[in-house]
Amino acid sequence: MPPGKIVTLLTDFGAGDHYVAQMKGAILSICPQAHFVDISHQVEPFNILKGAFMLGQVVKYFPAGTVHLAVIDPGVGTDRRLLAAKLGGQIFLAPDNGLLSLAAASGPLEQLVAIRNPRFLPPLGTPATFQGRDVLAPVAAHILNGLDLAQLGPQPDTFKVLDLPSPTGGEDSVKGQVLYVDHFGNLVSNIPAAMLASLPGGLENVTVSCNARNIGPLVGTYGFVQQGQLLALINSMGLLEVAANCDSAAKLLNASTGTEIHVSFNSSKKLT
Amino acid sequence: MPPGKIVTLLTDFGAGDHYVAQMKGAILSICPQAHFVDISHQVEPFNILKGAFMLGQVVKYFPAGTVHLAVIDPGVGTDRRLLAAKLGGQIFLAPDNGLLSLAAASGPLEQLVAIRNPRFLPPLGTPATFQGRDVLAPVAAHILNGLDLAQLGPQPDTFKVLDLPSPTGGEDSVKGQVLYVDHFGNLVSNIPAAMLASLPGGLENVTVSCNARNIGPLVGTYGFVQQGQLLALINSMGLLEVAANCDSAAKLLNASTGTEIHVSFNSSKKLT
Amino acid sequence: MPPGKIVTLLTDFGAGDHYVAQMKGAILSICPQAHFVDISHQVEPFNILKGAFMLGQVVKYFPAGTVHLAVIDPGVGTDRRLLAAKLGGQIFLAPDNGLLSLAAASGPLEQLVAIRNPRFLPPLGTPATFQGRDVLAPVAAHILNGLDLAQLGPQPDTFKVLDLPSPTGGEDSVKGQVLYVDHFGNLVSNIPAAMLASLPGGLENVTVSCNARNIGPLVGTYGFVQQGQLLALINSMGLLEVAANCDSAAKLLNASTGTEIHVSFNSSKKLT
Repeated sequence: MPPGKIVTLLTDFGAGDHYVAQMKGAILSICPQAHFVDISHQVEPFNILKGAFMLGQVVKYFPAGTVHLAVIDPGVGTDRRLLAAKLGGQIFLAPDNGLLSLAAASGPLEQLVAIRNPRFLPPLGTPATFQGRDVLAPVAAHILNGLDLAQLGPQPDTFKVLDLPSPTGGEDSVKGQVLYVDHFGNLVSNIPAAMLASLPGGLENVTVSCNARNIGPLVGTYGFVQQGQLLALINSMGLLEVAANCDSAAKLLNASTGTEIHVSFNSSKKLT
Repeated sequence: MPPGKIVTLLTDFGAGDHYVAQMKGAILSICPQAHFVDISHQVEPFNILKGAFMLGQVVKYFPAGTVHLAVIDPGVGTDRRLLAAKLGGQIFLAPDNGLLSLAAASGPLEQLVAIRNPRFLPPLGTPATFQGRDVLAPVAAHILNGLDLAQLGPQPDTFKVLDLPSPTGGEDSVKGQVLYVDHFGNLVSNIPAAMLASLPGGLENVTVSCNARNIGPLVGTYGFVQQGQLLALINSMGLLEVAANCDSAAKLLNASTGTEIHVSFNSSKKLT
Repeated sequence: MPPGKIVTLLTDFGAGDHYVAQMKGAILSICPQAHFVDISHQVEPFNILKGAFMLGQVVKYFPAGTVHLAVIDPGVGTDRRLLAAKLGGQIFLAPDNGLLSLAAASGPLEQLVAIRNPRFLPPLGTPATFQGRDVLAPVAAHILNGLDLAQLGPQPDTFKVLDLPSPTGGEDSVKGQVLYVDHFGNLVSNIPAAMLASLPGGLENVTVSCNARNIGPLVGTYGFVQQGQLLALINSMGLLEVAANCDSAAKLLNASTGTEIHVSFNSSKKLT
């Protein structure tokens, strides 16, 4: 199969303005075969953590060679660096502000470059307020056309990684928090299935609670409880999620990003 | 002309999350030439009827061979079936929950398959909460690559069709209801132009009312009345619509899905 | 490089309905290689000026031969004309209602046609309420396939251009207004950088105020002031913009489209 020349775009620009289209035009002017996939442009303005989470979640579904262009960039035009990174066979273009924190888990860091080569920078005097369009977009197009990342500039050793809240656990309980609330009001936690599965009782013997409300044991999918009822499950990202069948758990529990989620092991069934 | 490898996507996932992009990545990983057209991802969560209406409205504008992937799926992971259907030369992938109700009118049912072949199902142990991504997306890509639907599983005889509200009519009046309210606040009814045209007075002699307000006879287009004024017309879907020129009929009439619309024949002009 | 067969779409249809997908299907049915770029579908209903501004802003980023399809069309189906225009090597399809006002600055008018040839019009009796789908979309596809604009109809001399508010200036001050408020709450004015640069003090010696609040001199980018603080800069469109670092200037200043922006020259530094 011929390479797809795929570019994903993730921004906090919203869907109402012409900024995303300007970036796409800038790419198409250099690489007319570019194939765009919008991840989202609705990330809350300046919410780098949320963008980092979403970028981390999509990577494994895209083929090798995909270029991911992520622009949530409150520091645009300041001295924060613009990076090109090759991770697990895919390319990431983003400001060095933590946006790559979770994508970094997708594979070994093969290449890391700070974009400094004047050949790929806009002329002096260009306003520095939209480098997603004026730097990263043309660089993305050149990479799709075959440019080696090494041409872009010096190669630093590290990039910024955000300090993410980690779940904490004892022998018979785990405490995590809501990392992401989706469009349905599903509460996605930072507790991976593997963390629960490796504990003595296993996934079948946990009980979940959130905001002082007992949610119950894990179920297989949303429709396994009555409509409007709360439930907990391992979701499609492999994370513990608190949800409601055909309803919003965020509303029912008055929960949001940062709300704590507790998991305890059902003692009556606990192995001894 | 070479086939377009077109995939449309219709979901209730919203525009804010990364779920649609995961589906697109899953498709591109198998068929890099897939050409996406988003129908909408803003269907109200779990509103199968609205999704079915929208899917039914787009079909006739797409070329033969288009694959339509529709995921409004409150029963995800339960025992409701996942279907692949060939209707009038186009392919539909959707849960068997009524989403295909109106697309079914687009042409004869040529093939119907329940997706059961383990070769096209995710490994055992995969969470069952996102089968749009884990089952339907890869199946869509394989179909674009030439897979025959018959390979996917057993061939049931029927699929679920929703009970849609039908307009009722006597000799000199028709009663219908609002089926769809669009972004402009236009009230799209379930009354087809043909139903009005076949009655004695014809389209030129009807009078429309809605929520006890007389709207008047049919006009040709929005701009044929003053700005802010209500009007009735046969819209671009061939359905009776109540609208307002440069304003929202939904707001002006306090109307929504289910609101009744009445059509009577202007007796003074009625044929005898 | 092969031509990209790029079609941009700009409408006030919103993201929730199936209307944009119907247009894309109509295009793909005639030109399966069409490559879509959505500029925005979230222009406020019937806001021709905003659409004209956005269309004008994207043009320079797209390659020659791009077809721009713009449908903000409160007069759909009335006697306003449907136009095809070639401007600076790019093609524009739009109603003759002012939508092309700012794109017109992108290059010389090479060709202007009123779409009248019945070969490219829908059959008589087709409702006239969605000519974006029934006229402009197929015409866009035929142009991508090589159709010469001259085939479409008669060639008028002019098209409608909106009366845009212009900044006014004396020797030591300029008064303009907010033309566009973006998703971040940035206030984009109608004052071009060149207008300020050509005045005696130059860009380094101006002071900006808005809604009776002193914003200060121009800075290079958002991050050059503290978070939450107001600032003024020359933005990525080359226009004076009032913004706030990681905050919404529109909210902080209670400003919107039409709000006045004043620029004065810092007298202590003024050249003599």
